[in-house]
Amino acid sequence: MTTFQVGSSLIDIAAQTRQAASKLAILSTEAKNYAIEAIALALESAKDEIIAANIADCEAASNQGIAKPLYKRLQLDEHKLRDAITGVRDVGKLDDPVGKVQIHRELDTGLILKRITCPLGVLGIIFEARPEAAIQIVSLAIKSGNGVILKGGKEAVRSCEAIVKAIKQGLSHTAVNPDAVQLLTTREETLELLKLDKYVDLIIPRGSNSFVRFVQENTRIPVLGHADGICHLYIDKAADISLAVPITVDAKAQYPAVCNAIETLLVHSSIAEEFLPKVAEALAQRHVELRGDARTLKILPHIATATEIDWKTEYSDLILSIKIVDSIEDAIAHINEYGSRHTDAIISEDSAAVETFLGLVNSANIFHNCSTRFADGFRYGFGAEVGISTQQMPPRGPVGLEGLVTYKYQMTGEGHIVATYTGANAKPFTHRDLK
Amino acid sequence: MTTFQVGSSLIDIAAQTRQAASKLAILSTEAKNYAIEAIALALESAKDEIIAANIADCEAASNQGIAKPLYKRLQLDEHKLRDAITGVRDVGKLDDPVGKVQIHRELDTGLILKRITCPLGVLGIIFEARPEAAIQIVSLAIKSGNGVILKGGKEAVRSCEAIVKAIKQGLSHTAVNPDAVQLLTTREETLELLKLDKYVDLIIPRGSNSFVRFVQENTRIPVLGHADGICHLYIDKAADISLAVPITVDAKAQYPAVCNAIETLLVHSSIAEEFLPKVAEALAQRHVELRGDARTLKILPHIATATEIDWKTEYSDLILSIKIVDSIEDAIAHINEYGSRHTDAIISEDSAAVETFLGLVNSANIFHNCSTRFADGFRYGFGAEVGISTQQMPPRGPVGLEGLVTYKYQMTGEGHIVATYTGANAKPFTHRDLK
Repeated sequence: MTTFQVGSSLIDIAAQTRQAASKLAILSTEAKNYAIEAIALALESAKDEIIAANIADCEAASNQGIAKPLYKRLQLDEHKLRDAITGVRDVGKLDDPVGKVQIHRELDTGLILKRITCPLGVLGIIFEARPEAAIQIVSLAIKSGNGVILKGGKEAVRSCEAIVKAIKQGLSHTAVNPDAVQLLTTREETLELLKLDKYVDLIIPRGSNSFVRFVQENTRIPVLGHADGICHLYIDKAADISLAVPITVDAKAQYPAVCNAIETLLVHSSIAEEFLPKVAEALAQRHVELRGDARTLKILPHIATATEIDWKTEYSDLILSIKIVDSIEDAIAHINEYGSRHTDAIISEDSAAVETFLGLVNSANIFHNCSTRFADGFRYGFGAEVGISTQQMPPRGPVGLEGLVTYKYQMTGEGHIVATYTGANAKPFTHRDLK
Repeated sequence: MTTFQVGSSLIDIAAQTRQAASKLAILSTEAKNYAIEAIALALESAKDEIIAANIADCEAASNQGIAKPLYKRLQLDEHKLRDAITGVRDVGKLDDPVGKVQIHRELDTGLILKRITCPLGVLGIIFEARPEAAIQIVSLAIKSGNGVILKGGKEAVRSCEAIVKAIKQGLSHTAVNPDAVQLLTTREETLELLKLDKYVDLIIPRGSNSFVRFVQENTRIPVLGHADGICHLYIDKAADISLAVPITVDAKAQYPAVCNAIETLLVHSSIAEEFLPKVAEALAQRHVELRGDARTLKILPHIATATEIDWKTEYSDLILSIKIVDSIEDAIAHINEYGSRHTDAIISEDSAAVETFLGLVNSANIFHNCSTRFADGFRYGFGAEVGISTQQMPPRGPVGLEGLVTYKYQMTGEGHIVATYTGANAKPFTHRDLK
């Protein structure tokens, strides 16, 4: 079996997906939840087949000398699969983001306007090695009423095919047309997918920075996500050092590979001599390599020198660059110049400084006296995270299911025409918000 | 005087605007309203100078043989200027879109998350002839806390320079740095502006369809607006003809040049013989030219033939194409194929048909038993309209001031670190929404 029919062009597949998605868009919450449970059951039934497919993927990857971290991400054992299926059922329990009435207003007697959330349409999701990502993505797409075209990493092709086969099998007994979920398997199709702005409403790339940047630069379809996560922690002159040290350690070393870990520590000059030796000692215990600017080196003479390149680098590793600044303005200027508009934090007991920082730093997440690592949809209580967006327009920051919906204005009248409300004897609107 | 300093590159100007905008972003509502009143007063003081500049523009345009409708839009007499200044004060009265708390949530004791609206940053607004558009745009930008780079039509350059000079003069005595408002005057600068995605957060093009499409296709900056407005009215088999006829006339003829006027009438075959002669008679009184498909011609033999091109054309004129369909599904399929996702309406007394239409038509505005001409920010009660967006992602449809803001997540803690909430003894989050 293959989910990519021979002879079908990608446009045909995308059109099919859109067609199926338009029906999915108007299903009730109950019907969508039923479909999500059917997916969970089908994945359980297909467990052996999926794991066998994954073993074949892993063997092939191993033969081609895949890097060890990638191999670990590719591996889908029974435990990971069970967790992923639990995740499907968790999505079933989330609040339905579709059908929320955002505006309900009488424009005049009998002329009623509603702004109501609705699915985006079709999502294009391009992800790298982890095959279980497909499971989570499909459940989020169904819950939000969207069709989804998946493109997994080439190493995971057998696993993804087995997963999507089971999902389609599960959906076949539900109100959701299995065409709402499609899998692409070749790199050429990825490039084609990015051109299908008539059929695909949002692209969510999950992968390396350079991959995300490639997607952003090669499509007119809106892209949800971020390339870099260059996050900063600024230690203000009014910082409580007993908070600043453990927060720095957490923000850098608790999980350095993730996007909300810090890469650069900015330290006010008037607290640097007291703070830096203490934080350096704490970071040394966590094996963090430090790189400092010239002024930092005067206080920490044994660390490496940080250059312009360091301020622009997302290490994603146990490395931290340090710069001494003479004012909060300098700290903010550095962040707005080198940051990724992702997550930046200030440690300070001075409420005026905190207000300045929260107001002037132009990032999606701006924190005070806590770790940058909290920037996350689950920690924010969104239940699921489809990605963290560093764009300026909403959705911004950690995006939950609400990032997968849009809205439409629906108005119902009783024969109302605009001519009544224009000209010399124009009738006024009432513009009365309704409950 | 010129607002474009010789020797400054556009990048320098954009950087200045961003700098000024970042200060403007955190001003209080009172300070912004004070600045808006200062603009109104300054425009009143500069009235003679502005009108003189406009007369010079009009003479030059006239000498170059400008088309009459363009000339009328270029003209800025005392009456139009007074209305524009009234509009500035109206914007002052609108609710401040900045600083709205959208989420206020305790993640754990002392760890408080807020999602709060904030300005986008810098707007790039490109508009054609009407010089008073600059006045409205600047007041909306200031109210929403954004810097603005304006580019007016070349015919209106003297008028725009006089207007922006007065605005900057007015701002010079307020908390708003006059650098927050900039005027570009050459076409080359427009092209450069579209490339400044590091400095400009949103482009709003106001002009012809082809111009908007050019902008959309030549920038990576988000664009608010729409190219086409191909709107449809569908007369269902269960339509009340006494509503259907006047709504058709209003939707086509009340103001045919605007984007929310209809271009195509879709008529269910089972009502066509009764409805079409009546609507044709009413439309004839309004001098509307009709073009029908083959089946329509059997009922209205004297009208012109509509071809594939008609379904794709925004006439913006007293012309209406008519197509007979055999089902609501066919009507919806036509709309989703040829429409602009702008505004489409159904006339029907059948609630199931209405629900199907509202659910399956993928447009920003979907109406029932009222004219498409109601799709408008003022009519919706938004107070001001920055444009109508036909994109799929929000903001969509008529966009008021809220389309000029985004949001940031601000979190404040008391030394909270993520390590506390992970691993074997992970503390749970409380995720409690606060008032």
